[in-house]
Parts: sequence; structure tokens; C-alpha cells
Amino acid sequence: MVRKTKRSIQWVQEKNQKKYAGVHLIAEFWHGKIIDDSREIEKILIEAVKRSKNTPLKLAIHKFSPQGITGVILLAESHIAIHTWPEINYVAIDIFTCGEKAIPKRALEYFKKAFKPKKVDVKEIKRGLVN
Amino acid sequence: MVRKTKRSIQWVQEKNQKKYAGVHLIAEFWHGKIIDDSREIEKILIEAVKRSKNTPLKLAIHKFSPQGITGVILLAESHIAIHTWPEINYVAIDIFTCGEKAIPKRALEYFKKAFKPKKVDVKEIKRGLVN
Repeated sequence: MVRKTKRSIQWVQEKNQKKYAGVHLIAEFWHGKIIDDSREIEKILIEAVKRSKNTPLKLAIHKFSPQGITGVILLAESHIAIHTWPEINYVAIDIFTCGEKAIPKRALEYFKKAFKPKKVDVKEIKRGLVN
Repeated sequence: MVRKTKRSIQWVQEKNQKKYAGVHLIAEFWHGKIIDDSREIEKILIEAVKRSKNTPLKLAIHKFSPQGITGVILLAESHIAIHTWPEINYVAIDIFTCGEKAIPKRALEYFKKAFKPKKVDVKEIKRGLVN
């Protein structure tokens, strides 16, 4: 984890399009591998950050009783969060990354490999879109 | 902050509608009060959690150089995140709360009072929607 970081806005802008601060992938995973070990979720979060070329700052994880894990990793580029409900085999994933260097879809692909969901729903939202 | 928590899925279901796990409010605040003190952002996050009847678990905050703050509070109900870019007077807010007890819109209203943005864009997404 990084302690001090310089950061200034790095707009994302495609040709002839409006500029925006970043991309937020909102994913729902259903009926996949149940992972109810917080160390494993921690490793998955860290690997996802690495693969998507993000900069990790701080990690917070909590394990519920009798099941379920909630975890987030703060990034220089924003955050990645995982919330699991093993009792209904559902995992909510957020990948919110700013700037042009991060590749949030790589994190999503990695999460799919880790959780192997049979059903996936993904929404992509532009954050900080300048109208 | 709470250390041990029991949690099981608490579906949200309106009359004759499909059930879902929770609500995610995605807000963009522009041209408001610039808050670049991490203690102040921490207090705002904690107050937002209280007003929206959520249960705080863990807090992680990071201050960038020369400006900008990124912070998240993990909840028994999911998470609330704030990312600020004072240099463009933009704040990205996520309020993701599961179950029927939380009132995420109260957190949003409180954030509006705190940041006083001149321009606000809010999207509301149902998370864990059962099709």
C-alpha cells in the first residue's frame, strides 16, 4: 500500500466526446463459487487492483456472522468494493477507476475468473461527466 | 465502529415488484463548498451513516497531495464512498445500502447540505435485482 500520493484530475476523453473523470463498473455476480474466507477476498482484491493497473492505498475488510464478507480497497484512482451474500450466492462488485491509465475491465475479468458466476449483470457508468 | 455483526440477506420488495438486495445512489456534485480536510470528510461520512440509519464497520480515508480526499466507510449494509477533486470542484459520492431499514436518500440529502453543490446528478440503481 502507498502512503503518500500526488494526484490531480486526469480526464478521460474519447474523440469528439465529452470528457469525464472515470469509469464505474457495477457488476452483479450470481451462482458462482462461494468464497467466504476474508483472506481470500483480500488476495482477490489486491490481485484485481494489480491487473487493472491501479494504485492501492488502503484496504478494509469485514467478515459477517454466520456468513458474508464486505471489503473495499481505496485506490489513487477511486475504489474497488466487494460485498458477498453466500446465502443467496450473490456478489456485488464495484470497480470505480479514474484517469486513462487504469483498465477497470481487467479487474472485472479477473473477478469473473475468481468467482465463476453463472449469471453476470454489468452496468458501466461514466463518472464526473462534463456536460 | 462495530466489531462483530450478524448479517443475513434482507430483501427489499415493493408491492408486485421484483425483489432486490439494496439501493445504490450514484451522485455527482459540482461547484459546491470545497472541503479538503480529511477529518472533516470523516465527520461527514460518519454523520451521513447515522442519518441514513446504517451501521458503520470500518473507515478508510486518504488525503492526496496537493489536494483531494478519498474515503469510504464500510457498512453492515454495504458502503458509502466519497472522492473529491477540489481542482475541478467535483465530488463523486456512492451510497450503497442493503435491506429495508437503511434510508440512503437521507445520506444524500445530508451530503448536499454539507457540500452545497450548485449542480447535482444522481442515478439510482437496484443492486442484486432478482430477474
